[in-house]
Amino acid sequence: MTLPPALALRFLRALLAAAGEPQVRVRLWTGDEAGAPAAKAAGTLRVADAAALVRLALDPDLQLGDLFVEGRLEVDGDLAEFLTEVLRPRADVGLWKRLLPAGLRERALATGLGQATKNARHHYDVGNDFYALWLDERMVYTCGYFETPEATLEQAQVAKMEHVCRKLDLRPGEDVIEAGCGWGALALHMARHHGVRVRACNVSGEQVAWAREQAEKQGLQDRVTFVEQDYRELSGTCDAFVSVGMLEHVGPDHYPELGKVIQRTLRPHGRGLIHTIGRSRAQPLNRWTQQRVFPNAHPPTLGEMMQIFEPQDLAVLDVENLRRHYTLTARHWLERFEAAEARVETLVGRELARTWRFYLAGTVASFAVATIQLYQVVFSRAGNDRIPWTRAHVYDRGAS
Amino acid sequence: MTLPPALALRFLRALLAAAGEPQVRVRLWTGDEAGAPAAKAAGTLRVADAAALVRLALDPDLQLGDLFVEGRLEVDGDLAEFLTEVLRPRADVGLWKRLLPAGLRERALATGLGQATKNARHHYDVGNDFYALWLDERMVYTCGYFETPEATLEQAQVAKMEHVCRKLDLRPGEDVIEAGCGWGALALHMARHHGVRVRACNVSGEQVAWAREQAEKQGLQDRVTFVEQDYRELSGTCDAFVSVGMLEHVGPDHYPELGKVIQRTLRPHGRGLIHTIGRSRAQPLNRWTQQRVFPNAHPPTLGEMMQIFEPQDLAVLDVENLRRHYTLTARHWLERFEAAEARVETLVGRELARTWRFYLAGTVASFAVATIQLYQVVFSRAGNDRIPWTRAHVYDRGAS
Repeated sequence: MTLPPALALRFLRALLAAAGEPQVRVRLWTGDEAGAPAAKAAGTLRVADAAALVRLALDPDLQLGDLFVEGRLEVDGDLAEFLTEVLRPRADVGLWKRLLPAGLRERALATGLGQATKNARHHYDVGNDFYALWLDERMVYTCGYFETPEATLEQAQVAKMEHVCRKLDLRPGEDVIEAGCGWGALALHMARHHGVRVRACNVSGEQVAWAREQAEKQGLQDRVTFVEQDYRELSGTCDAFVSVGMLEHVGPDHYPELGKVIQRTLRPHGRGLIHTIGRSRAQPLNRWTQQRVFPNAHPPTLGEMMQIFEPQDLAVLDVENLRRHYTLTARHWLERFEAAEARVETLVGRELARTWRFYLAGTVASFAVATIQLYQVVFSRAGNDRIPWTRAHVYDRGAS
Repeated sequence: MTLPPALALRFLRALLAAAGEPQVRVRLWTGDEAGAPAAKAAGTLRVADAAALVRLALDPDLQLGDLFVEGRLEVDGDLAEFLTEVLRPRADVGLWKRLLPAGLRERALATGLGQATKNARHHYDVGNDFYALWLDERMVYTCGYFETPEATLEQAQVAKMEHVCRKLDLRPGEDVIEAGCGWGALALHMARHHGVRVRACNVSGEQVAWAREQAEKQGLQDRVTFVEQDYRELSGTCDAFVSVGMLEHVGPDHYPELGKVIQRTLRPHGRGLIHTIGRSRAQPLNRWTQQRVFPNAHPPTLGEMMQIFEPQDLAVLDVENLRRHYTLTARHWLERFEAAEARVETLVGRELARTWRFYLAGTVASFAVATIQLYQVVFSRAGNDRIPWTRAHVYDRGAS
């Protein structure tokens, strides 16, 4: 595909107008540039060829990511800041849809789906070594809790685990069930610092193996049991039920089922906490993320989440929205990822490395512009009177 | 209506069994007693005559209150504790419904509705003097916040107002809109202690008059404007939108409309708070309360409340469930009410006095057994970054 330079530039200007004039600069393969002045721009997008420009116009949701992964789009400047500016909701966002005939969009989408097959890999199948290159030392792959924005990622992940434990009001000797435990950091933290016994489940055999190894290294294997199990297979009962970063993968159709698992396992005076990426209004996940990185993920609204609790004898005690803490967490991950990019490429190849870099920058951007949120929801049986009187204990720096 | 004593006693025992054997004692007009041993019972219910026993059996939800108001049921012991035991959810609660033929229940309900006309008076039409007999000195008719259970009602109401202000992160010079301001205590507190300007609306002319008088007494009339208006008539914009104890009267059909009012009035960096009685699972209000005390009231679930926020560009930042604080608040009100009962009767008559005593005791009981909850929901525009980094400032006793 070729485009005369003058036509390409006019096409680009029309595109930028349709996108609501984001404060970014775009440089074409012809050397022509358009968009915000360099001094004001949140980055410069370099477009490698005419076909890339046309694909971008037809289906920006999907193609921005795909073309970046293919190396036909590059961003000079901070990738996360660039995406934040591009994703920022605009009053005239409807223009884009009006500009593009529905038929063209459908066809572009169909192409996208065809390509998806080769790209789509399960999110956690990339391997422990890959995550170890850019997560914190405890391998916590969920939103941290920054007591101040200056805290390090390591501090924020420890503070998050402690924040969860305080909200759960854990007491020594209690039994905890953790649904979806990742590499086991929270289970180990609870056992070590709060004297509880933990049964933690995860469907990923590789993560469970890693977690068991950590438990042995730390001498906690008698108090923490990691089981390769789905949350629906959980049996027994507990004083605290906790799930951090699993609900995104559960799917709203299964929320009532998760509620039944909690109803069955939580003892009368037990407490629970679910930590999840969510939304302030219902909408599907961005298509690129859905198709290329996180198949079948669904960030729920609080209204959707209530389908876990409201059919059961469970009352929500506390909800906290930690959206800005995730912007910061993902920013730390992105920085570490970019610093380790050469090693990442050696490990997983260039395509996957670029996919993940785009995904992490997009995560920073999505939390920054608030198309996604982070909810921590604390609950108990509706009539549980053995819960702390106020939430002050969570913030009492003198405590435990 | 007459019943042979032996038959009445057998009937009573069957009733207690059907009700799931609550730990209460019942004494009939015949002198016969049944139920839990006196030492274990949460109170003794005295039934005045056979017709009362039959009415109670046919429609306990409505008749327990009505017969109490008529003086044909009396409770020896603490009325709130008695009702807590009676209302406590039981595994075999279905029995009651199975025991009573649906037709009989319908007819009993129809009778109830007939009587309702003479009794139903609007909740706030009873008059300021009436409320002054048993509310705190500031006339705050919503759930208090007890930093410890030992706090006085006055302390708890001031602490609640302060808790709300801290959650809203009010700053001097800001504009606040309050929807449903009761007797104006919160509006005055915000202006006096946080240096904000407040426009507060209320549909009750009598309350607005009282509130204006307070504003003048306190020299705050330049900073607090009380308007006799419905929340839908609110105009202008604000840095903080607050509504404490109004949503119960709004009705779920109007939640999207309330959301539009907030969307229209809240400035880009504004914060909001809604404080309401709610439920952990959807069900209508107890029929007696609905028909005799609180016509058209509806305590929403959190899921229902999300219809305010999710259609708009609003994100929930924080939810706190203060259920047990309301048990305690209503307990204080009941104690003051009972201490002032002679004056209450002189003011509003015996029937209304008994109606209210039963209502307040029932409120203690309903929060104690958790059929109702108390939610404080903090929100802002979804992408508002000018909110406090954590909730620690709410609990920082060194602050303001």
